[in-house]
Amino acid sequence: MSDELELISATKSFGGWLKRYTHRSEALHCDMVFAIYLPPAAEEKPVPLLWWLSGLTCTDENFMQKAGAQRIAAELGIAIVCPDTSPRGTDLPGEHERYDFGSGAGFYVNATESPWNRHYHMYDYVTGELPALLEAHFPLNGKAAISGHSMGGHGALICALKNPGRYTSVSAFAPICNPSQCPWGESAFTGYLGKDQTNWREWDACELVKSRGSKLALMVDQGDADNFYQDGQLRPEALQAACKEAEVPLTLRMQPGYDHSYFFIASFIDDHLRYHAHHLRSA
Amino acid sequence: MSDELELISATKSFGGWLKRYTHRSEALHCDMVFAIYLPPAAEEKPVPLLWWLSGLTCTDENFMQKAGAQRIAAELGIAIVCPDTSPRGTDLPGEHERYDFGSGAGFYVNATESPWNRHYHMYDYVTGELPALLEAHFPLNGKAAISGHSMGGHGALICALKNPGRYTSVSAFAPICNPSQCPWGESAFTGYLGKDQTNWREWDACELVKSRGSKLALMVDQGDADNFYQDGQLRPEALQAACKEAEVPLTLRMQPGYDHSYFFIASFIDDHLRYHAHHLRSA
Repeated sequence: MSDELELISATKSFGGWLKRYTHRSEALHCDMVFAIYLPPAAEEKPVPLLWWLSGLTCTDENFMQKAGAQRIAAELGIAIVCPDTSPRGTDLPGEHERYDFGSGAGFYVNATESPWNRHYHMYDYVTGELPALLEAHFPLNGKAAISGHSMGGHGALICALKNPGRYTSVSAFAPICNPSQCPWGESAFTGYLGKDQTNWREWDACELVKSRGSKLALMVDQGDADNFYQDGQLRPEALQAACKEAEVPLTLRMQPGYDHSYFFIASFIDDHLRYHAHHLRSA
Repeated sequence: MSDELELISATKSFGGWLKRYTHRSEALHCDMVFAIYLPPAAEEKPVPLLWWLSGLTCTDENFMQKAGAQRIAAELGIAIVCPDTSPRGTDLPGEHERYDFGSGAGFYVNATESPWNRHYHMYDYVTGELPALLEAHFPLNGKAAISGHSMGGHGALICALKNPGRYTSVSAFAPICNPSQCPWGESAFTGYLGKDQTNWREWDACELVKSRGSKLALMVDQGDADNFYQDGQLRPEALQAACKEAEVPLTLRMQPGYDHSYFFIASFIDDHLRYHAHHLRSA
């Protein structure tokens, strides 16, 4: 891990600071950018951290610009970090041709298939390298929660399920609940992990719930007017069935009329931050 | 005025609906797009309307995506309309070459100079044609307030100053207070209004304050780390001096550390909406 962080920008927001940094990632073998929001309380004492994993096509910027989360994070005294959604600056064959595979679509897994296995280790990046870098450089108290949207909602679920005790709480907006069984996930997992679906089980939230269970409750918001939900990409019902089978507590809120956009996220981000704040305080 | 509105999209947001429409503008001789947020209360009864005029390079989308205003508008029962910032779909010589003149930079004036005087009547559009269209199509109660950012903050000020009694309240974020005396304004006014600066006075908020006064108080937020403020494009001190001379009440809040971005707007939009809600209720 390189210990060097280069500040790109610092923008005052709700009394705190939104900062963007670039750094060399050893896990990904490329330069990466992330954004961190530091609430006013971080000037006084270490604060807890919420991880936000974004969806397909996003960068570190979408959530900070569109979710309206800084207002509540400032009030609650929570930092938020937004990693990017894939390695960047690389130019693998076909990497930039599709919105749902390659750049902007790392799926938070560790790729095993060539040529993706050189760079596409987003799981190691968001659970290993980046947390260590943040702990070293920012006033954080070691407590962390995790959330995300769509591909990143699934990322949040698998990070929590694969690391019991690591996060105080997990939530997701419109997650791809069961990537082994939907077009987005089948395509991405075949590319990153190969055709042998037994290797997919460690990277599918529904399979992880069934194989490992979870002491942590799962909280999911899903809009019922979400076209990707209607097209079968998200499959919250599969997560519901897996949780029932494994006796994992799941709060699945179907939100009538809401779509897949950041307008949906913004409408309910307040609930999620207060949920995480409660668990971060109690931990 | 054409009475036809074509719905582009409807997105649920904080229990209300964000809708985008296209329509033929007779004032601008082109097709235009606007966005309107209808709070949940609009399903029960007519609601008041806040006009939001955006800044250079923006469209109807920036404010709705980034300001976080729908949350408060939903709570307060206020509709918000975001017009575009210039005529669109035209291709006048040089119209798309600069970010601060032509498309995306209509300055909310009525151009008198050729070739701009055929299309660039954004003042007539936002004070005449579009209000009539909205009253005809949406559940509005006839009460209106106005706000905006940068070029649009100035637009809000001149709309209010030129139409006493029309708006219950006016506010602005980092407005170009004195366009006759700053590079952005001098360039735009020369292009749209010609070289005779006596014709600029009707379109400059500081000149209007001095010539007409205002019963309406003005409310302005300005970040002191705003590079455009530091570069002399915004000149709130000129507005302050004009208001003092004309005995017009001005609340100018210098916000330490804030820049010119939507992160600044989002940080204080709550204050502005509550300010307008108070006046809209009292009117």
